[in-house]
Amino acid sequence: MRSLISITDLSVEELQSLLDTASQIISDPQRFSHICEGKKLATLFFEPSTRTRLSFEAAMYELGGQVIGFSSANSSSASKGESVADTAKVISCYADIIAMRHPLEGAPLVAAENASIPVINAGDGGHNHPTQTLADLLTIWREKGRLSDLTVGFCGDLKYGRTVHSLIAALSRYSGIKVVLISPHELRAPDYVKKDILDAKAIPYEETTDLETALPNLDILYMTRVQRERFSDSEEYERLKDSYILTAEKLEKGRSDLSVLHPLPRVNEISVAVDKDPRACYFKQVLNGKYMRMALIMMLLEQKDKTQLRTPDYVTGKRHCSNPRCITTVEQELEQAFFLADPEKEIYRCKYCEAEAE
Amino acid sequence: MRSLISITDLSVEELQSLLDTASQIISDPQRFSHICEGKKLATLFFEPSTRTRLSFEAAMYELGGQVIGFSSANSSSASKGESVADTAKVISCYADIIAMRHPLEGAPLVAAENASIPVINAGDGGHNHPTQTLADLLTIWREKGRLSDLTVGFCGDLKYGRTVHSLIAALSRYSGIKVVLISPHELRAPDYVKKDILDAKAIPYEETTDLETALPNLDILYMTRVQRERFSDSEEYERLKDSYILTAEKLEKGRSDLSVLHPLPRVNEISVAVDKDPRACYFKQVLNGKYMRMALIMMLLEQKDKTQLRTPDYVTGKRHCSNPRCITTVEQELEQAFFLADPEKEIYRCKYCEAEAE
Amino acid sequence: MRSLISITDLSVEELQSLLDTASQIISDPQRFSHICEGKKLATLFFEPSTRTRLSFEAAMYELGGQVIGFSSANSSSASKGESVADTAKVISCYADIIAMRHPLEGAPLVAAENASIPVINAGDGGHNHPTQTLADLLTIWREKGRLSDLTVGFCGDLKYGRTVHSLIAALSRYSGIKVVLISPHELRAPDYVKKDILDAKAIPYEETTDLETALPNLDILYMTRVQRERFSDSEEYERLKDSYILTAEKLEKGRSDLSVLHPLPRVNEISVAVDKDPRACYFKQVLNGKYMRMALIMMLLEQKDKTQLRTPDYVTGKRHCSNPRCITTVEQELEQAFFLADPEKEIYRCKYCEAEAE
Repeated sequence: MRSLISITDLSVEELQSLLDTASQIISDPQRFSHICEGKKLATLFFEPSTRTRLSFEAAMYELGGQVIGFSSANSSSASKGESVADTAKVISCYADIIAMRHPLEGAPLVAAENASIPVINAGDGGHNHPTQTLADLLTIWREKGRLSDLTVGFCGDLKYGRTVHSLIAALSRYSGIKVVLISPHELRAPDYVKKDILDAKAIPYEETTDLETALPNLDILYMTRVQRERFSDSEEYERLKDSYILTAEKLEKGRSDLSVLHPLPRVNEISVAVDKDPRACYFKQVLNGKYMRMALIMMLLEQKDKTQLRTPDYVTGKRHCSNPRCITTVEQELEQAFFLADPEKEIYRCKYCEAEAE
Repeated sequence: MRSLISITDLSVEELQSLLDTASQIISDPQRFSHICEGKKLATLFFEPSTRTRLSFEAAMYELGGQVIGFSSANSSSASKGESVADTAKVISCYADIIAMRHPLEGAPLVAAENASIPVINAGDGGHNHPTQTLADLLTIWREKGRLSDLTVGFCGDLKYGRTVHSLIAALSRYSGIKVVLISPHELRAPDYVKKDILDAKAIPYEETTDLETALPNLDILYMTRVQRERFSDSEEYERLKDSYILTAEKLEKGRSDLSVLHPLPRVNEISVAVDKDPRACYFKQVLNGKYMRMALIMMLLEQKDKTQLRTPDYVTGKRHCSNPRCITTVEQELEQAFFLADPEKEIYRCKYCEAEAE
Repeated sequence: MRSLISITDLSVEELQSLLDTASQIISDPQRFSHICEGKKLATLFFEPSTRTRLSFEAAMYELGGQVIGFSSANSSSASKGESVADTAKVISCYADIIAMRHPLEGAPLVAAENASIPVINAGDGGHNHPTQTLADLLTIWREKGRLSDLTVGFCGDLKYGRTVHSLIAALSRYSGIKVVLISPHELRAPDYVKKDILDAKAIPYEETTDLETALPNLDILYMTRVQRERFSDSEEYERLKDSYILTAEKLEKGRSDLSVLHPLPRVNEISVAVDKDPRACYFKQVLNGKYMRMALIMMLLEQKDKTQLRTPDYVTGKRHCSNPRCITTVEQELEQAFFLADPEKEIYRCKYCEAEAE
């Protein structure tokens, strides 16, 4: 069964095929409006995420399909203690494809291993959120006409921002990418992004704390939110927060062909006044997200009998995943498994949450 | 973009056109069963209201359309602090028309100003609920054959009952209307209803505390609930409550062609025994509400490129809205604005919640 | 109006007709995929039950219909105190058929008496859950080719397990049924099952506490969960719990043509290792449940003008239902009514919850 758990489950060719399909949908939506007739999408949202859920539902309806599902765990059987595996098996009797959001990392992978229908990861805790990255990529592609030869600035919380990590991983497969990491010291991008992705792919990058200096050189500015809760020192937060807010004034220093992206929802990290600037692309991103989800649903339903790309060798038995937000902590009779992420340093990572094994 | 925020956004001609469309739907529903094919209604219910939500959803399905949405704020992004304006912009990427319920007054107007699709106010706190008034008007029209030359009694909580205020405002535009206001002293209709609407339009009205005496003269009796919480003095409540309950016995004094309306849900203010009386029209009102919502969705989708009727001159800057339930208290970067409601007394009212400015 | 409140509302002939329709759907789903076009199912779930709700919704979509509804009471008008009768009348304006889940026993019957459309009981507290029994029956019929001449073991909580009681009642109408009741002493099947059903229909049964000894003789093993909360003595629970867990090891003693059923969700009462055994039928049951709900929706929509089979003589006035989970405890102006369940002993039971009257 073909599923989408992480953005890197897709090859560069497959990604291009999704971008092409999305473009076809945009230019002739009518042509696709009955393609999923008689099919059902199950939106299994174990935690609320209205924007993502409604994007999937709109996508399925625009393909002529139907939708069943739930929007939070308290209206699901999860409160009765059912395993993710059983839920996946049951829903396979009701629907043709699943979009799953879950607070525990790795839950959609467990679902994909047990369902007899494709599973799309619609966000698993702080781990993966590949369809957001699809929205980001289509936006860059439509705005710039290319996914290569771009200087991309990431601003805000680069430590916890999973959309940042995924987009860097996705762009790392294209040539001529330069990355500028703009964040307070406390929220710098983690080592596995800098070493395992950027260094490994020989992508030039610089780190800075200063948005205003970095801005003039960027093709893309990817904004994220700096949350008070992330700071151990709240005075530090108060001192810093305004530097990472994009105002119309700061934006004056950007190029005329800059594109400003944001995964939304925003709180105040982009001033409402910026919305009117033609360089603001974050609401276009929302629309592009819907089109990429349409393309993805079509691709997975067509390829549903293909086996998954990702098949590293897993080892079981000796190691233990110590990530408290990993699905292996609660799922009934689920064996822990690990893959060798770094052969030199002998670093193993959990198959489900990708945390380093002990 | 054409939206419906307040019942008075509709001209008398438009209202008549909605009544006519509803009648056509009733006589030949099949003719309309594919008219919204490929269209989506978004039901954005920031507070639960099952009856109103299901009425909108049934309406859209009977027009051949689809529905996305949420039924309470905790399954929406609102808990992440997204503004109403951003929600409206995002949902405009997913749907063709919005029905919004919100606890804060003025929220649907903010949505209408930011959406690129029509917005229907499905209730904003104690402020407006225009589609209930549409249901009321169709019911009167079908039962009586006219919206003029009617003696209409309103009974119960006339102070806080927004459906009462809206229906009085709507009926005030027809000729030959007489109004009887039946309520305990503590829950009498507010001055702006009596002066700004009834007196301004020279509509004769009387106030009374006695349902039984008023009943024999009425063409329409509009019942509402008297809630214990509204009384400062609970002994007063206990003494009064039974006088505002409509029993089969009291109804004997009503004319044979009386129509009893109630916006529902009722608790005990109309005895279940009254349901069987042919003069009980409150379940017909439910059905009529669905038909008027169908007519309204059709009208707004057809007129979506028209600009809104309502364009008074707004003034900004000096005044301040002190209504704690106004959307301006929380919405990010929303400028307060006021219109001159009473030029003589120089009374300004908030653009969003219509509360008097300080 | 024809409704389904209890499994015994269906005659043996009607049950056979449902099984036949389900078989036709299974062999040619396309033929039925537009049969409910333009119809709406209302899923009124006053308490969450994701599996049952999604099964109904999938069923309706596969028939070409639409779905409206709610998935828990806090997103319904019930929190405003509306009666079940009023809800049923209101929803009759919006939908063509209702599936209702309610925590209070008898609520779906109250709905059926007030709705102008068919009502399906989707579970009322610990009382009835007839569509689960339909799923069970189709599974047995498909696996065994018959509903007669079977030795059926019921294991686990036979005291509170409503699915067990309903399936025994349903099977009691076929010939050659033998029943084995396997449970701890504290959770033995209640007298009304053993006397009023098994003895009354002269069905041979035995009671045992030992699953392993009983297993080799069974055609069907119906597993249920033994919950800690059911035991007054938690040491007793600890001592017993493992004996009622079905493991791959224990299953070795079963016949090669045994069928293992479970109403789901399971927690740990069937080991995940059993899932791969061809005798495990509980996920097939899920699929069969959808097909039977499709057949049922079709039947009730066709027969909607038929009157209900069940019309015993009800007596009112003298007796009182003392079951605190009965709908009569809260429903506005609902008269209590009783039927003579046992003429010899003069036992009267409540019309709504079937508890013995005082």
